[in-house]
Amino acid sequence: MLLGQCFAIMPLTGIRRASPRHVHFRFKSVPMIVTLIFMMASSVLTLCMLKYLLNIGVTAKNFVGQVFFTCVQCACILFIDLARHWPSLIRYWTHLELVFTKPPYEVLKRNLSQRVRQPALIIIALSLVEHSLYLSSAIVSYKQRVKFCTQNYNSTMGVSFDNYVKVNYDYVFPMLPYTRLIGVYVLLVNGTCTFIWNYMDLFIMMISKGLAYRFEQISKRIRRLEHEDRVPETTFMEIREHYVRMCELLERVDNVLSGIILLSCANNLYFVCCQLLNIFNKLRWPINYVYFWYSMLYLVGRTACVFLTAATINDESKSALSVLRRVSSKNWCVEVERLIFQMSTQTVALSGKKFYFLTRRLLFGMAGTIVTYELVLLQFDEPNRRKGLLPLCA
Amino acid sequence: MLLGQCFAIMPLTGIRRASPRHVHFRFKSVPMIVTLIFMMASSVLTLCMLKYLLNIGVTAKNFVGQVFFTCVQCACILFIDLARHWPSLIRYWTHLELVFTKPPYEVLKRNLSQRVRQPALIIIALSLVEHSLYLSSAIVSYKQRVKFCTQNYNSTMGVSFDNYVKVNYDYVFPMLPYTRLIGVYVLLVNGTCTFIWNYMDLFIMMISKGLAYRFEQISKRIRRLEHEDRVPETTFMEIREHYVRMCELLERVDNVLSGIILLSCANNLYFVCCQLLNIFNKLRWPINYVYFWYSMLYLVGRTACVFLTAATINDESKSALSVLRRVSSKNWCVEVERLIFQMSTQTVALSGKKFYFLTRRLLFGMAGTIVTYELVLLQFDEPNRRKGLLPLCA
Amino acid sequence: MLLGQCFAIMPLTGIRRASPRHVHFRFKSVPMIVTLIFMMASSVLTLCMLKYLLNIGVTAKNFVGQVFFTCVQCACILFIDLARHWPSLIRYWTHLELVFTKPPYEVLKRNLSQRVRQPALIIIALSLVEHSLYLSSAIVSYKQRVKFCTQNYNSTMGVSFDNYVKVNYDYVFPMLPYTRLIGVYVLLVNGTCTFIWNYMDLFIMMISKGLAYRFEQISKRIRRLEHEDRVPETTFMEIREHYVRMCELLERVDNVLSGIILLSCANNLYFVCCQLLNIFNKLRWPINYVYFWYSMLYLVGRTACVFLTAATINDESKSALSVLRRVSSKNWCVEVERLIFQMSTQTVALSGKKFYFLTRRLLFGMAGTIVTYELVLLQFDEPNRRKGLLPLCA
Amino acid sequence: MLLGQCFAIMPLTGIRRASPRHVHFRFKSVPMIVTLIFMMASSVLTLCMLKYLLNIGVTAKNFVGQVFFTCVQCACILFIDLARHWPSLIRYWTHLELVFTKPPYEVLKRNLSQRVRQPALIIIALSLVEHSLYLSSAIVSYKQRVKFCTQNYNSTMGVSFDNYVKVNYDYVFPMLPYTRLIGVYVLLVNGTCTFIWNYMDLFIMMISKGLAYRFEQISKRIRRLEHEDRVPETTFMEIREHYVRMCELLERVDNVLSGIILLSCANNLYFVCCQLLNIFNKLRWPINYVYFWYSMLYLVGRTACVFLTAATINDESKSALSVLRRVSSKNWCVEVERLIFQMSTQTVALSGKKFYFLTRRLLFGMAGTIVTYELVLLQFDEPNRRKGLLPLCA
Repeated sequence: MLLGQCFAIMPLTGIRRASPRHVHFRFKSVPMIVTLIFMMASSVLTLCMLKYLLNIGVTAKNFVGQVFFTCVQCACILFIDLARHWPSLIRYWTHLELVFTKPPYEVLKRNLSQRVRQPALIIIALSLVEHSLYLSSAIVSYKQRVKFCTQNYNSTMGVSFDNYVKVNYDYVFPMLPYTRLIGVYVLLVNGTCTFIWNYMDLFIMMISKGLAYRFEQISKRIRRLEHEDRVPETTFMEIREHYVRMCELLERVDNVLSGIILLSCANNLYFVCCQLLNIFNKLRWPINYVYFWYSMLYLVGRTACVFLTAATINDESKSALSVLRRVSSKNWCVEVERLIFQMSTQTVALSGKKFYFLTRRLLFGMAGTIVTYELVLLQFDEPNRRKGLLPLCA
Repeated sequence: MLLGQCFAIMPLTGIRRASPRHVHFRFKSVPMIVTLIFMMASSVLTLCMLKYLLNIGVTAKNFVGQVFFTCVQCACILFIDLARHWPSLIRYWTHLELVFTKPPYEVLKRNLSQRVRQPALIIIALSLVEHSLYLSSAIVSYKQRVKFCTQNYNSTMGVSFDNYVKVNYDYVFPMLPYTRLIGVYVLLVNGTCTFIWNYMDLFIMMISKGLAYRFEQISKRIRRLEHEDRVPETTFMEIREHYVRMCELLERVDNVLSGIILLSCANNLYFVCCQLLNIFNKLRWPINYVYFWYSMLYLVGRTACVFLTAATINDESKSALSVLRRVSSKNWCVEVERLIFQMSTQTVALSGKKFYFLTRRLLFGMAGTIVTYELVLLQFDEPNRRKGLLPLCA
Repeated sequence: MLLGQCFAIMPLTGIRRASPRHVHFRFKSVPMIVTLIFMMASSVLTLCMLKYLLNIGVTAKNFVGQVFFTCVQCACILFIDLARHWPSLIRYWTHLELVFTKPPYEVLKRNLSQRVRQPALIIIALSLVEHSLYLSSAIVSYKQRVKFCTQNYNSTMGVSFDNYVKVNYDYVFPMLPYTRLIGVYVLLVNGTCTFIWNYMDLFIMMISKGLAYRFEQISKRIRRLEHEDRVPETTFMEIREHYVRMCELLERVDNVLSGIILLSCANNLYFVCCQLLNIFNKLRWPINYVYFWYSMLYLVGRTACVFLTAATINDESKSALSVLRRVSSKNWCVEVERLIFQMSTQTVALSGKKFYFLTRRLLFGMAGTIVTYELVLLQFDEPNRRKGLLPLCA
Repeated sequence: MLLGQCFAIMPLTGIRRASPRHVHFRFKSVPMIVTLIFMMASSVLTLCMLKYLLNIGVTAKNFVGQVFFTCVQCACILFIDLARHWPSLIRYWTHLELVFTKPPYEVLKRNLSQRVRQPALIIIALSLVEHSLYLSSAIVSYKQRVKFCTQNYNSTMGVSFDNYVKVNYDYVFPMLPYTRLIGVYVLLVNGTCTFIWNYMDLFIMMISKGLAYRFEQISKRIRRLEHEDRVPETTFMEIREHYVRMCELLERVDNVLSGIILLSCANNLYFVCCQLLNIFNKLRWPINYVYFWYSMLYLVGRTACVFLTAATINDESKSALSVLRRVSSKNWCVEVERLIFQMSTQTVALSGKKFYFLTRRLLFGMAGTIVTYELVLLQFDEPNRRKGLLPLCA
């Protein structure tokens, strides 16, 4: 499972350190340097955009790009911070997991590495589709536009890679001179940013799956006890100890991860709001509609997925309650009482810096809030929407 | 009680399987085929409408029909899924209920089948009134319009069944050729859809009544113990066991039903918001006002009814708490303590996929949210409202 | 205390039955007849207004009067329903209170009847000021208007009582012919309605004070035990029994009263929103400003008062917790544990039909909600506000 | 620590009494007189502004100043009220703290006086920067304006201190005659008001740090017990007693402080909303932008800081729970059970008059609410924003 995670981290961003056992964190290491190079590269773009926006004036529309880059930058910093604590955390985790691989706990239907790998592969595939759709949409729009403009306005723009980059990433070139190298560099950084942006959510999901799996094992074990006639107190003592330890592990993971969770949530909420706001916008070409709808569904789906996956920890941690409540008077003991009390009163879940806990109820509340925001924003955006499409060739 | 439910399911939609004892679910069965035929029939209409909407442009107003059809389709799928789990669930339920039909538990004032049948009959009657009002409203409007147009614009439209269907279900006929058969088919499908739409809520209410009844019996039994001097621990043990079993049954029912609950809630909220939004719209004929107000009150009433009926489960499950708190020191035992603790800390209620629990507090929160939505939507809709009525003969 | 309440009920509305001990409820009694006469009298006005509104078109502004009359009508019906249950409730209450008048419980600083009478007198005084300000405001506006119109437009309206009533209650006279008797009748009914409207809140406050006082006595008794060295378990048993009984009394009162609470809350929220919305309206004469601001502050103050007084029940019921938590190991027993558990987990408060509980937290949530509503409503009302004052002499 | 607090109170506002040990409160004392003089001085300004506003008409924009002055006045009154209860509170506190300075409790990494002093110094420094930026911004705007107006409109305004004060505090001089003394007095009162305004938040933070520190010590002590093999029940008894006492101290502090907390929160929310609303306003000179953004960030930062610092009390009070849950069966006793139960069910936190508790969850809820308000307000403010800058020389 840990292997899966570490593997997943590295190739995607090319910036984390390897070796699941001898994991170390050094500031002077190759992955660290790669990360720093990437961060510098992307911060150049961020600054370009910032300057560009300050020149033409910030609006809600063109602000999206800025938010995107800032999020990615923050994510990088948070991941570096996470990397610092990762070695000790992963050792603690691995040590704790030894218990769960042995007999009293059984391997569940789909084992852990399968569970962790599956969403990773799906998310990666879908995000690849999303990014390639984005590129196709941009390229097709660009081509159609050139075609249209040359026909109607005698504009002499030719269809070329250089021109495409210049038009689509127009915020870069007031500051940097255009060379083909810089064009490629801009495309690369944009692509990598998109991956990191997806990776943040993916990482939370994988960690959640890992933790939820262990709570599920505990629940399963308790459920097996249901049909036994006489359960010694020591068994419950052992189970409770493992449960408490898992809670502590969750606490430690949460301390390290909750910055990323907070960023991911804020980021997802912002982009979902933005995309939902654009539903009624008119677009010019069919491919834009395809990209837009796919992108929106992908975003909403990914956000829901992250929340629901994280909420499974909470669900699983409580799932054994119903069995424990059926423990008969004969088997009743202080340990069972303590376990029930803890399960009932403690919120076992990943959190966003303890400001909120990722549970199913939260998702419901958030959905309500998003609808409110959307309704107000739609009204706010009414005048822009009525204007319709801007003229194509300025 | 189960008979009542199964009977109620079948005749209405004609799509579920019979036999309360030997209930089976087979994909290859007559009711299944009927359901599938209906689903295909209605999906043809859904697609017609979708295409029609994409042609003339989606607005908040004409989107309502699309939502209606999509809801009905989803409801069908969810009911088929429910049907798959129904046989095992109903066997478990019947088995569990045997305990509650015997002496320690008494039959309550109005017995279960009365309780279940009564709301069913009321809802069905009211929905029949609603649908016939809808039809009268549509027919009267149509007639008046034809009359008005022939008088003032020399239009030659005659009042005929064919024409009525063509005008009222105009979204069907760009795709399908008009024959009288198709006209009847459109009317039939629309009627059936309305019934399924009502049936969803009715089903939730009946299940809730069934569960709440059992919790009420437990409460009643506990209340009878209040005046007894000396209650043996085994009595409380038995009561607690029954309570826990009922909670488990609720859990199982909830797992199977919560998809339908979620759909029903979303659906009700959407239509309540829509109808409340239309309060200030001007309508042309008095019959339209009658239909509109009746429809709105019916909808709001039905929604409140579903929520409140479902909330009775939660209310009943806690109603014995006050008696248990009065248990004197003499009768106090671990079993009573466990029962009190469970009643205090567990949320015993049907849920919408665990995102929210159907309790009285939820209804209060929802009311507040709906008011907020309404206020924003009313403001949003201001320009449309000011336009007033469209010209009658285009 | 009960005397105070019964007295307070009767003279104000002149519609409830007397005699604190032998309280009975008969449909055929003098107070009942008075009530019914009043209800018919006011329903005539309600219908007049309804017809008038349907003629000139309903707007948010002129709807206020309709809501006012409908609230008063509902309040009457709810009070009659309350009166039906009152005799048995008051006997139960009086019986229960006997315990609290004897030694182990001491009389608190300000005794109960003082506490109950004080807010009653204040509210009645303030509401009298409010109503007389309303009348002065209406009369002065009317006089000024006549003066202004005769000067500028040669209108020949004279200042007379008949004319005043006709102008101010213009909704009555399309339906009823004007005679001086009917004029007086309209004024009387309006005055009585205002009193009932205030009385609803006053009643809730007095009941709350009565209940909170008893919980305070229990808390006080527990607090006295703090410094005793050795407390026998029987003492705690007794205290817990009294506490549980008080909770049961609260439950019974709540069942009877929660309809009125729900109405009062909805009513207060609606009028507070309306009045806050009118803050930015321009008024013509200084006396209108005086009335308007006084009325608004009175309304907000009264609403806050009702909520806070009702919330004291909740506060007092928990106030002994901190002392119970200090009970030393020596005195620790199951009874203390049960008492602490009950106090921690049970929400002891009056409720609005169990949809919400009147606690301090609710007030906070409501304040937030009102601000949201106000902001949206203000925006909604913008166009009306910009129009300014209407011409005086139409 | 107490010294730090008392010192911090006095020099800033010059209005509280000294001597940490023999703290007394007398109405007839020098600090009291100073306070009263200041209050009168500032109330003169408040009244000037009120009269000025009533003359030119109240708008959301010019209302800010009025709110500012009213807040400061309320803060003064609340601080005087606090001062009345302070001597007895501080004696109780000091007495209670003796326990925590002795061996079983260890001094934490950064000791208390460091912790209390540090935020005080930072806040004071930042607020000084803020006020000087405000002054520079005002002066530069004034100078530029004079320069611009003399060039373009031949206005003969000279740049002078007198003129500056007249222009910037124009609300004062319709009521008071201008002399240089009054000019200085106006500046001084404004400066002092700003300090009191900051001091309110600072005071809450320092008290919070003081309380959180003690809870942290208790947690630390419990955490040390984790590795001990056999812990006697008396140890837990002692810890629980200290914990309960700390809760009582918190309760007392809260009773005295919660008025200030409520004012501070309302005040911060209002100003944060106002400042966020002004984000899109155009300003004339760069220094205005610098001041505006610094001021906004300072305000948001300070508000977040107050909330988070106050929330640490809640965090620390629960931090020992995870250790207590690991207490093995051997060491398990009633005292541990009671402690766990209390920690789980009691909300240990400062509150705003019990309407809400300052916890991390509250901050999350508030953030959501602020966003809603902002969205509605932005829309509301749209027309004003579109107008752009007013002409400079009127």
